[in-house]
Amino acid sequence: MIKQALIGILCGAVALTVGILIGHYGITKSNGSWAKDVAKDVDESLVEKFLSEVDSSHIRENLRELTKVPHMATTAGDEQTVQLMLKRWQDPDAGLDQAWREEYLVYLSFPDPKKPNKVTVVSPADAVLYTAREKEKVYTPDQDDAEVVQPYAAYSPAGQPKGKLVYANQGKPSDYKLLSETVDLRGTIAITRYGGAGRADKAINAAPYGVSGVLVYTDPLDINDGLMSDASETYPHSWYMPPSGVERGSFNTHYGDMLTPYLAAKEETYRIPAESITGIPPIPIQPIGFEDAYKLICELGGRAAPDAWRGGFNCTYNFGGPGFKSTSAFNESDVKLAIFNTEVVKNSSNVMGVIRGSVEPDRYVIYGNHRDSWVHGAIDPSSGTSVMLELTRVLGRMVKQGTWRPRRSIIFGSWGAEEFGLIGSAEYTEQYFTKLSERTVAYINVDIAVFANATLRASGMPSLQNVIFKATKQVDAPGLGATSVYDNWIRYANRTSSAHGPIPRVGYLTGAGSDYAAFVHYLGIASMDISYTYDRSKTNARIYPAYHTAYDTFDYASKFIDPGFISHQAIARTAGNVLIRLADSLVLPLNCSDYAESLEDYLNTAVPLYQSKLQAQGISMEPLKRAVASFRSAATHLDQVIRSSDLANETPLKVRRINDQLMLLDRAFLDPLAFPDKYAYRHVIWASSSAGKPTFPGLADAFANAELTVGSWARVHYHLSVLSQAIEGAAHTLADVI
Amino acid sequence: MIKQALIGILCGAVALTVGILIGHYGITKSNGSWAKDVAKDVDESLVEKFLSEVDSSHIRENLRELTKVPHMATTAGDEQTVQLMLKRWQDPDAGLDQAWREEYLVYLSFPDPKKPNKVTVVSPADAVLYTAREKEKVYTPDQDDAEVVQPYAAYSPAGQPKGKLVYANQGKPSDYKLLSETVDLRGTIAITRYGGAGRADKAINAAPYGVSGVLVYTDPLDINDGLMSDASETYPHSWYMPPSGVERGSFNTHYGDMLTPYLAAKEETYRIPAESITGIPPIPIQPIGFEDAYKLICELGGRAAPDAWRGGFNCTYNFGGPGFKSTSAFNESDVKLAIFNTEVVKNSSNVMGVIRGSVEPDRYVIYGNHRDSWVHGAIDPSSGTSVMLELTRVLGRMVKQGTWRPRRSIIFGSWGAEEFGLIGSAEYTEQYFTKLSERTVAYINVDIAVFANATLRASGMPSLQNVIFKATKQVDAPGLGATSVYDNWIRYANRTSSAHGPIPRVGYLTGAGSDYAAFVHYLGIASMDISYTYDRSKTNARIYPAYHTAYDTFDYASKFIDPGFISHQAIARTAGNVLIRLADSLVLPLNCSDYAESLEDYLNTAVPLYQSKLQAQGISMEPLKRAVASFRSAATHLDQVIRSSDLANETPLKVRRINDQLMLLDRAFLDPLAFPDKYAYRHVIWASSSAGKPTFPGLADAFANAELTVGSWARVHYHLSVLSQAIEGAAHTLADVI
Repeated sequence: MIKQALIGILCGAVALTVGILIGHYGITKSNGSWAKDVAKDVDESLVEKFLSEVDSSHIRENLRELTKVPHMATTAGDEQTVQLMLKRWQDPDAGLDQAWREEYLVYLSFPDPKKPNKVTVVSPADAVLYTAREKEKVYTPDQDDAEVVQPYAAYSPAGQPKGKLVYANQGKPSDYKLLSETVDLRGTIAITRYGGAGRADKAINAAPYGVSGVLVYTDPLDINDGLMSDASETYPHSWYMPPSGVERGSFNTHYGDMLTPYLAAKEETYRIPAESITGIPPIPIQPIGFEDAYKLICELGGRAAPDAWRGGFNCTYNFGGPGFKSTSAFNESDVKLAIFNTEVVKNSSNVMGVIRGSVEPDRYVIYGNHRDSWVHGAIDPSSGTSVMLELTRVLGRMVKQGTWRPRRSIIFGSWGAEEFGLIGSAEYTEQYFTKLSERTVAYINVDIAVFANATLRASGMPSLQNVIFKATKQVDAPGLGATSVYDNWIRYANRTSSAHGPIPRVGYLTGAGSDYAAFVHYLGIASMDISYTYDRSKTNARIYPAYHTAYDTFDYASKFIDPGFISHQAIARTAGNVLIRLADSLVLPLNCSDYAESLEDYLNTAVPLYQSKLQAQGISMEPLKRAVASFRSAATHLDQVIRSSDLANETPLKVRRINDQLMLLDRAFLDPLAFPDKYAYRHVIWASSSAGKPTFPGLADAFANAELTVGSWARVHYHLSVLSQAIEGAAHTLADVI
Repeated sequence: MIKQALIGILCGAVALTVGILIGHYGITKSNGSWAKDVAKDVDESLVEKFLSEVDSSHIRENLRELTKVPHMATTAGDEQTVQLMLKRWQDPDAGLDQAWREEYLVYLSFPDPKKPNKVTVVSPADAVLYTAREKEKVYTPDQDDAEVVQPYAAYSPAGQPKGKLVYANQGKPSDYKLLSETVDLRGTIAITRYGGAGRADKAINAAPYGVSGVLVYTDPLDINDGLMSDASETYPHSWYMPPSGVERGSFNTHYGDMLTPYLAAKEETYRIPAESITGIPPIPIQPIGFEDAYKLICELGGRAAPDAWRGGFNCTYNFGGPGFKSTSAFNESDVKLAIFNTEVVKNSSNVMGVIRGSVEPDRYVIYGNHRDSWVHGAIDPSSGTSVMLELTRVLGRMVKQGTWRPRRSIIFGSWGAEEFGLIGSAEYTEQYFTKLSERTVAYINVDIAVFANATLRASGMPSLQNVIFKATKQVDAPGLGATSVYDNWIRYANRTSSAHGPIPRVGYLTGAGSDYAAFVHYLGIASMDISYTYDRSKTNARIYPAYHTAYDTFDYASKFIDPGFISHQAIARTAGNVLIRLADSLVLPLNCSDYAESLEDYLNTAVPLYQSKLQAQGISMEPLKRAVASFRSAATHLDQVIRSSDLANETPLKVRRINDQLMLLDRAFLDPLAFPDKYAYRHVIWASSSAGKPTFPGLADAFANAELTVGSWARVHYHLSVLSQAIEGAAHTLADVI
């Protein structure tokens, strides 16, 4: 009986234990169905699966399809790419939850196909002595496509100015100033080279001197490492720009639709009168190839230009004429521009695609690139679009297979009319301003995915540095076997961080070079932009040489930019890896201490530059120093809270609270009144600056201005207060929530 | 053995069952500790406990202590109230988690105690024929306190203008215009009565006509239902203003510290030059009592003023003189103002107190009132402060006892320097702009808690209407037995709602009458303001008659405004009830469909007023109609989601998502560029308006202006686009999050 009793007790004990185990683990409590989901973190095996499935041959085929025809914004070719994106993303097998188009009626500028712009040299008797090319030379059938737009300067006014030619270097204010010291510029035509100043600025800076028209070309020194011969040295023999290649572009200084500032450009939206637009050329301007520029510049009279003004031509870039030298066949002749551009309001589309988040659908990671090109745009932007389509293919398939759904929602944006001034992305942020401000975790921009095959190039908010590093360590560098993108990158661009030691250098997004601008400057969203790029020690090219020409084709890309598409693949893997981490991490991979380091770097630059002169004006930098110190201290504290918390097992509202602090950090740096003269620049840390100092942009600009302008120290003091308050405000958001 | 086996099986089964039960219910899962908390809703028994503990005698004693001495901003008396608040809130037994002071250096204006402002009648030979009172008559020791500030107009410039007196009614633009048709106003002194125009505007409107100084007084018709005798009719015999009573006030049109627009007024903050301040009187202005005004006005020459201009004096308010009538002893005499106000930057404090939230500490319900008065300020503002102290006593005790901790954090603000232009609250919102924008659920303002004993008066965002109704149904109306505040209120102020039928009328917070202004207009936070007030059918008083005089004392309040303090108690119960519901509700009690109804009301007012004239200008109202319809549809949908969800049992991130949509709704209506001429007004629905139409303020003002000004229809179109985009943007935030 004792034995039986013991067995009974034992059985009972076993049954009790089994019961407890079943009760505890086997039966889902009312909250059990979601408790596991809300605590989930990034699944590293899923990241590996993603990396292995990204396929260079798919990217190649995407690019081939996207670049069949020229697809300049709002043209039939653009509509073909809209349809392609919609077809891919709306395919029920694609795995995206939704895809649609968003249309805006935007202000664009085109040449007249029936009356092409002309640049000629005309004799005093009005005989045409020379005519610049109207089209680029045909090397492949691509250049022969009827839809290749004539090279032109979008937003240049129409007009037919005529005058003596002068060479004005890069068209910077200092260039015209120097030139004007010896030449009366009234009524002249200035020829300038790309670089040094914004496109529109070359004309804006010229107008006050009475210049009546401007030409712009790409000097072989700046793009081709000096090479000029299309018989052997340039495309189709290499990646270099052929002599007839012309960089097209948008000649404006603000971004977004210019008729509807701060308003989404819908049909009935109020539009300002076109005469009220600022930041566009007040006088006609036209780009030409260096073949023509050579003919004009090397015939100029006057004395030799300073060395810094000279490019790659075998002549002295004379200045001082004005006009051609007496020994020239063009002697006494004028240069005449006949520009027939017209402005039109046209329908431009964004194509949007969404993968809905499972746990936090109200948190967005946005990934975007523009779709429109100037001509075929194989590199700009279709390299990026090919990568985006490959990402949506691989991610969508995981969703479709049921193996994955991101914690947060992912929004893909294929922006329209970027080339005319980042219009599609800017209108999108205007239309959905509040919603996007409140919910967007980060924006990833991949425009030109590959400039060249040497190394990664990344720019973004410092808070994103860490997740970029993590991703790049997991991706193989193209063509280097087992070397990671990270290990390769650090050899090309690095710095020593006070916290991390030697690390790759991540740039800052201080300008409006691509569609990240509205996300960074208008919305204050943590953003990044990546690409693969060249070895600066091997070339001085400003950018890849076919940029905005009719040579930026699939042929060019696949032969000279990325044969095998392995750099495209590396970018897709890197960007996708970052995307998955932003979408899936339990704690957002946004590091506020790295942000603090950047603010300290800026402060450490600013103090020696400005402090003593400000003190002499009775202006203290102490509030700024205190603000940066507050930020550092709050960031350290928040990091400590994150490290010391067991967030997977605490209330999901705690990790949400921390994630909100991280997500919204950049919003604190916005001040709609900080930069009254800069359209849609609100971020006091990353706004563009003309002072050229690696520090707080508004402070640097106000200081530079105060040194030039009597009575403007008050503006420096004002901006210091704006800046200090913003940084203190950001620190408050990182501190304990109450 | 079979039996034993059966017993064994039975025991085993029991043990298994017990085990399962223990396992399921007895052992807390890792998330069990928080799962219950996150699903908790308002505890109605706790609300009842709160209501029963609010005690009128505590409120009375709070008021007695707060009103011992005058406590004008930044004076020693103000510091005493700071110390009182800190003592109460920092007391370890009080139950608040934290309390502290926040200091700002703010721009104020005071009379010179050594050189009091004077108003005299002087003969052509410069003999003083009459001198207006410099102090109010003493009826109780309170008026005899040395710290009673002389009546003055804060921000009136110093100066000693002298001239013929004219009566200018309320000092509206139309008043000066009418007067100027028959009188040359250059060099005159205008006497005006309070009402009809803002304080500063009475001088701002006068200056263009060459008026050199302005007097302002309170007419017995406007405040005392015509009664004038202090021997029997006015205080201390009734609540009416004694003949020598003078309404002090701040004579400025913008709110917040005027030297630091959009910046918190800290020591090193940039300050604009005082000369750059706008919205303050350009010429001296001084308030006087009706006793003196009577002596001056009834001696005036010229013809009788129109009926609408006349007040309660037994004379014809002559206008047309200028100057006194020939039969007057003052004939040929001038009126002279000698104003010695000085402006100073002084340290003003907010006192802040916090009860930390248990589940969502990063969500704030803010409750506030100013602390500073003009003199003893028993009603304005100490009635509200007495109520706030009673709330913190009762709520703090529940925290201290461990019976309660709010789900969300509660922040109490005792604002400084409100009387000078809502300065303390405005600086607070500037300093913590981002943090407060991101996290604040609602702001409750109780300034003057009790004007009189008849009925509740409430204003606020329509989204708060429902929770105000709920709370008022649970509170007994003062002196009416079992009648609720709600049932009493609906008899005095009601409307018929399309959704709810007859309901009490909740007003809108369209101006800057108290500290809610920065929360509504600058931050876009759902806000409300409540008080107990009078029966409009029984008195025409503009406001309670001792307002801003030396008679606003404990004696006055306890005898004539709220004997027994039962209306104070009703306000404390109502405001506290709303506060608890905002802090504790699982789903925020913010109703977006009620907001939709208000937008529809505004639209239905706007269409018949504006549509046909706008159509004639080629401007369509369709985008606005579509936006309001989108908002309605999104609101209906969100309400449906809330109703159909079992939020207590779903992931806490779902209710958080919905609550974020509700909390952030008003943020979507902000546009920092919508009202370039109105300082810190960004809310496109509730901004102040001068057009006097119950509809969208910017549209109404732009339309009114377009009818007067050639070429300004574009501004109407522009504002329509701003407004439509904001409402569409708000609708996007209410729609499905992806």
